[in-house]
Amino acid sequence: MSWIVEEEGFDPGRVTTNGNKYMLGNGAIGYRGTLEEFDKDQLTATTLAGLYDKVGDQWREPINAPNGLSTRIVCDGEPLSLLTANDATHKQTLNIRNATFARETVFLTASGNRIELRTQRFVSMERLDLIVMKVEIRCANNCDLLVHTGIDGDVWDINGPHLEQYEAAEKEGVIGISAITHELRRTVAVAEGIVTDGEFEQACLKDDKTIKRAISIKCAAGVAYGFTKFVSVRFGEDRESVSDEAFASVRSAVSVGYEEHLNRHERQWERKWEQSDVAIEGDEEAQFALRYSLYQLHIIAPTASERVSIPARGLSGQVYKGAVFWDTEMFMLPFFLHSQPEVARNLVMYRVHTLDGARRKAAEYGYRGAYYAWESQDTGDDACTLFNITDVFTNRPMRTYFRDKQVHISADAAYGIWQYYEFTGDESVLLEGGAEAILECARFFYSYSYYKDEKLRFEILDVTGPDEYHERVNNNAFTNALVAKTIEIALRTLDLLEVKHPDEYRKLMEKLDYGNDLANLIRLFDDLYVPQPEADSLVIEQFDGYSKLEDVDLASLKTRILNKNEYLGGGNGLATSTQILKQADVVLMLHLFKGRYSREVKRANWEYYEPRTEHGSSLSSCIYALVASDIGYADWAYKYFLRTATIDLTGDSKQYVGTLYIGGTHPAANGGAWMAAILGFAGVHYEDGVVRINPSLPEQWQSIAFPLRIRGQSFNVRVTRNEVFIRAEAGNRSAVTFLVDGVHELAVEPGTSETLSASGQERGDGLAG
Amino acid sequence: MSWIVEEEGFDPGRVTTNGNKYMLGNGAIGYRGTLEEFDKDQLTATTLAGLYDKVGDQWREPINAPNGLSTRIVCDGEPLSLLTANDATHKQTLNIRNATFARETVFLTASGNRIELRTQRFVSMERLDLIVMKVEIRCANNCDLLVHTGIDGDVWDINGPHLEQYEAAEKEGVIGISAITHELRRTVAVAEGIVTDGEFEQACLKDDKTIKRAISIKCAAGVAYGFTKFVSVRFGEDRESVSDEAFASVRSAVSVGYEEHLNRHERQWERKWEQSDVAIEGDEEAQFALRYSLYQLHIIAPTASERVSIPARGLSGQVYKGAVFWDTEMFMLPFFLHSQPEVARNLVMYRVHTLDGARRKAAEYGYRGAYYAWESQDTGDDACTLFNITDVFTNRPMRTYFRDKQVHISADAAYGIWQYYEFTGDESVLLEGGAEAILECARFFYSYSYYKDEKLRFEILDVTGPDEYHERVNNNAFTNALVAKTIEIALRTLDLLEVKHPDEYRKLMEKLDYGNDLANLIRLFDDLYVPQPEADSLVIEQFDGYSKLEDVDLASLKTRILNKNEYLGGGNGLATSTQILKQADVVLMLHLFKGRYSREVKRANWEYYEPRTEHGSSLSSCIYALVASDIGYADWAYKYFLRTATIDLTGDSKQYVGTLYIGGTHPAANGGAWMAAILGFAGVHYEDGVVRINPSLPEQWQSIAFPLRIRGQSFNVRVTRNEVFIRAEAGNRSAVTFLVDGVHELAVEPGTSETLSASGQERGDGLAG
Repeated sequence: MSWIVEEEGFDPGRVTTNGNKYMLGNGAIGYRGTLEEFDKDQLTATTLAGLYDKVGDQWREPINAPNGLSTRIVCDGEPLSLLTANDATHKQTLNIRNATFARETVFLTASGNRIELRTQRFVSMERLDLIVMKVEIRCANNCDLLVHTGIDGDVWDINGPHLEQYEAAEKEGVIGISAITHELRRTVAVAEGIVTDGEFEQACLKDDKTIKRAISIKCAAGVAYGFTKFVSVRFGEDRESVSDEAFASVRSAVSVGYEEHLNRHERQWERKWEQSDVAIEGDEEAQFALRYSLYQLHIIAPTASERVSIPARGLSGQVYKGAVFWDTEMFMLPFFLHSQPEVARNLVMYRVHTLDGARRKAAEYGYRGAYYAWESQDTGDDACTLFNITDVFTNRPMRTYFRDKQVHISADAAYGIWQYYEFTGDESVLLEGGAEAILECARFFYSYSYYKDEKLRFEILDVTGPDEYHERVNNNAFTNALVAKTIEIALRTLDLLEVKHPDEYRKLMEKLDYGNDLANLIRLFDDLYVPQPEADSLVIEQFDGYSKLEDVDLASLKTRILNKNEYLGGGNGLATSTQILKQADVVLMLHLFKGRYSREVKRANWEYYEPRTEHGSSLSSCIYALVASDIGYADWAYKYFLRTATIDLTGDSKQYVGTLYIGGTHPAANGGAWMAAILGFAGVHYEDGVVRINPSLPEQWQSIAFPLRIRGQSFNVRVTRNEVFIRAEAGNRSAVTFLVDGVHELAVEPGTSETLSASGQERGDGLAG
Repeated sequence: MSWIVEEEGFDPGRVTTNGNKYMLGNGAIGYRGTLEEFDKDQLTATTLAGLYDKVGDQWREPINAPNGLSTRIVCDGEPLSLLTANDATHKQTLNIRNATFARETVFLTASGNRIELRTQRFVSMERLDLIVMKVEIRCANNCDLLVHTGIDGDVWDINGPHLEQYEAAEKEGVIGISAITHELRRTVAVAEGIVTDGEFEQACLKDDKTIKRAISIKCAAGVAYGFTKFVSVRFGEDRESVSDEAFASVRSAVSVGYEEHLNRHERQWERKWEQSDVAIEGDEEAQFALRYSLYQLHIIAPTASERVSIPARGLSGQVYKGAVFWDTEMFMLPFFLHSQPEVARNLVMYRVHTLDGARRKAAEYGYRGAYYAWESQDTGDDACTLFNITDVFTNRPMRTYFRDKQVHISADAAYGIWQYYEFTGDESVLLEGGAEAILECARFFYSYSYYKDEKLRFEILDVTGPDEYHERVNNNAFTNALVAKTIEIALRTLDLLEVKHPDEYRKLMEKLDYGNDLANLIRLFDDLYVPQPEADSLVIEQFDGYSKLEDVDLASLKTRILNKNEYLGGGNGLATSTQILKQADVVLMLHLFKGRYSREVKRANWEYYEPRTEHGSSLSSCIYALVASDIGYADWAYKYFLRTATIDLTGDSKQYVGTLYIGGTHPAANGGAWMAAILGFAGVHYEDGVVRINPSLPEQWQSIAFPLRIRGQSFNVRVTRNEVFIRAEAGNRSAVTFLVDGVHELAVEPGTSETLSASGQERGDGLAG
């Protein structure tokens, strides 16, 4: 039973957490795992990918569509709700294999009746505007049931109200609500159709923001009554046509019916699991946590649009402004690159489509090229504010440097595009704007860089690296390494275009007026300073002067905390003047460029930075797990892997930064869990045409098996403690070379299976230099 | 009576303020204006120039020597003290002409006696270790007086205790205390001798830190009894010899006697006023405030040592660590340069003697050359801490960037040395280390600078300018202009040496290994970016991005203050993210380089920055006064002049920054008052061999008259509304050219007097360009 999340009983204190944990979604819509009788006070949300709104000078954030599943039952005048019930029994279930949510609740009424309520719902992975729910009710005694079900437009807003000019309508049995977004005047339309198991008396009730059916059922004891709801959620420019489409979609869905929709939905999910499921033998907990992490990624991955990417809190609500961060490229992209490159393509194309926003940001700060948004939404303009945190001591906005100084975001974007090209060999992304985006990112870095005349080198000054507790630092090792990589990528892109697409090359050079920049990039590439391991300690200094900061241990630092929600970074933060870091920084660099550093260097740095890392970000543990695997620290790797993989199951994550609520799901950790398992424990590393596999399984794991897509070819890989099995699909077009433990090399031909021996023991990935 | 500060009555609330206001001093010793019966609780202090001490990890600060004037009187068993007296009348007087402090107090005892106490004291300007005090007592009725007078070693310490191993001794009627400083183990010795008007019974009492005489006087009604105290305060390496010298000094002083010491002291003061007094006709208030400002400068100016300079709070106590800031060069040096160049020489030689400390600081931060201490003490090592302010909201130390980022201090130091040379023509300072200091400062700036490849220019990044509310900014206009000036000065210094002192030139170039640096300096000088007036507004942006900060008005900003002592700068300060500045920054640059900017540019910038300036520093108002004079805003100039000139009379200045007490005297404002009067209203500006005089007198002033020393020649100048009178002393060796209002030019020959007409009206000092 490794596919079921379930919970018995009802704990009001877990309503918010369970909203995340039991979430459904299809990449276009996220539907929080709340119950049918809940409303905005319980944070119900129907989050739409790619639609944002801003009211006044509040934060811009996703809109929350009217809730088409809202359903409340009254039995003989007594409302049935878990929020008020005394003696109810309750069980709720999320099946992550087919992405369905179900509840079974038994209410005991004051008059002694016993009402069983069963619902099952899914957000269709086949028809992306569609949510479907089946409801069944059975009473122990005869009674009069009144069911209010319809569309609740009185939604939870963090920085709203986003929806205005509500209009409710009923046409031929389908009910609908449409509204207009405040800022962009887009229409959001929700329509609902119902199919009841029998003929009931029905009335239609409307108020300002709500349209409901009042269904009266004369219940006979022991008889099941039920109905099915088909809900279409759509948005677009023209109010009339968007509304009409929603109504039409519902009618079509009704005609197809529940079972057929569920079948189609399940087939989509089957295919997803075929492409991505990871099977772990010998560790039920890890198996389940990892699958659950993949589930969370699948429900938010854009399968049909290259205009959206994955926000930092997925589609779990308006939290974090629904913004896309570097998380996507660094922590989620690897999963999709290795398993569903078509989704990876959408993710990187999102950066291409937001290039103009990145150009605007660069220009705003006086730079040329493309400076991607730290918090990116629909246009690529930066949703990040200069005062992104509230000081808990003064309740005043605190100046932070997320927006202005995390320049590595442009390197992350360029790196992501190039990674897609390298993993797939698909040049179309480069030709459709990817090359242009890469060149603009490189140009931005030249524009941002300074030359230190005295030291004959370029430097990257005044940045904030992954460790956001230390803002405005010089020569952050991670940033400089990624800038160097970006310049290299730009030069390789230009080479590729010049050789294979000379017309495109000429056009692009002309369009971007890139002549001088090419020469500048070559100089920058030659002379850019990238901090190296210190001779004795082998430690790479995180940034200039880091080693002179107070070297306090984490426990001591925490004793200085006066308010549990105080932000440890920023101007006066407790960590700011110490060596305590928020999250993997140098260690992330060691992972990204793992071939460049010796095992000794990796160990020295892991050991130096690990005790100094607060893991104040969900992006941290997985990286420590990955590098721990790499250097043979299996226990540490496993500990950090589990912490990462269970974050959305336990709900144990930082809920506040300053006064800001940051709860929700953690896609980066979900992606990080996959990375720790496949890139860490299984030790998969694709580079320069070769799939390296250097396994380092946790002690209790007998094997890990997973599919792999590389350069368009599909494989199934199974790694045990002694061997690596590789099966190439018969449909593959060409062989791909695998290299196990750095010694056993083999080109795996289409339709063949191979077994290579593996030590599963200590190993060194490469040597510096 | 424009020479007397006086006060009737006793207000316990003014004890601290009056300690500053009634201070005596001679540049070696500062003695706070407290009363004889006071002790450490009333902040008595005998502050020694150049002796510092550090205890544990507290701040390093000057030591407070034992108080040799401590005197308490008991009448028939009843102690007489203003701190406890009910019906006393009291008057205290400071005569700033001869620098004497006097009190007249009448105590009424419980038994109905009436005791008159008169004292007069001075800190000898002739014998710099000597403090002398005369005491006279007269009683209305017969009584038994017991006088305890001696040396109180139980001193006020801010970050002490600094003195240890106290030893008290009495030898042939002279009493003494010596003690050892905690850090450097220096000896501080205070000896006291007494001359009584008649024979009284005397006993010597000692305890841990105190040695006193108990003098019993059988008082006859109406008869005056008195005594005189001669106190020597000395410090040095060897305990025995320092103590012996103090005893010997007292014996010698006793033999000379009170009146003769007073005469000698007064002659020194006469000479000071001859060299510096400013006479204003038509404005008693301004006249007095300005004289008082000059008094404050004279009592702290080093006349006999080039190893000390003037601390930011003078010799008024341990406040501000007794540290020397840029205040000296920018706000005090001009007064001395124009009136007492031998004192100016001491001040700039202090920078020469602390060059090694500046080199150590540069090396500490990874730079070459000399980076002068932001807070300089005896060695030139920086006393400024990285956490120089305490956050009032958390009571935690706040990271500030005074120490690391105020790089303009090295420019200020080099500029001061060069100013001395230009004003005096005295090359000895350059040859005795001044040239070396200048070259090292220039080298530091090359080492600190970055080249912006894209813009083909050098920039000065990550600095804090005069406006300390905005830390870590790029291309601060003031800083860049002063860096450019420093490079120019260095190149001119090298030219001068090469031509006139070729051997010294060769030696210095070799010693400093300066060959490459010379080429670097030339490139830096050619390509250094100095922000210029914006084309439309003519405003010079204070630093990159300043104009994008919130443009809130000062009153609105102040409504956001939650705690009256909260620091407005630093990471989370209220001013940090706005355009509100602490003190003159661009406007100070306009003053320093007044010949470079047109009247229109000066007006545009004065008008832009004036309403945005908080004047959170005592260094601000005088600069706004100066530039207001320059651009014809006489009312503004006068208002800011008066605010500056009265600061130590009214005691109305910022007393706290964060939780830090910053009270004391304000030498920079004292010097600024002189600058506003002479350089502003009289419009004196010496540059390139010509004394320009562009008067712009406040409406009520009929004239201002003052001595002037330029290039070793002495003049007396009197400026009226229509004319400028210049008298050259007969002893002058050569003529100096004066240029009035930019049109009337004349070489004033030795021993001649000249009158030039002046418009006293609107004028323009020069054009940009």
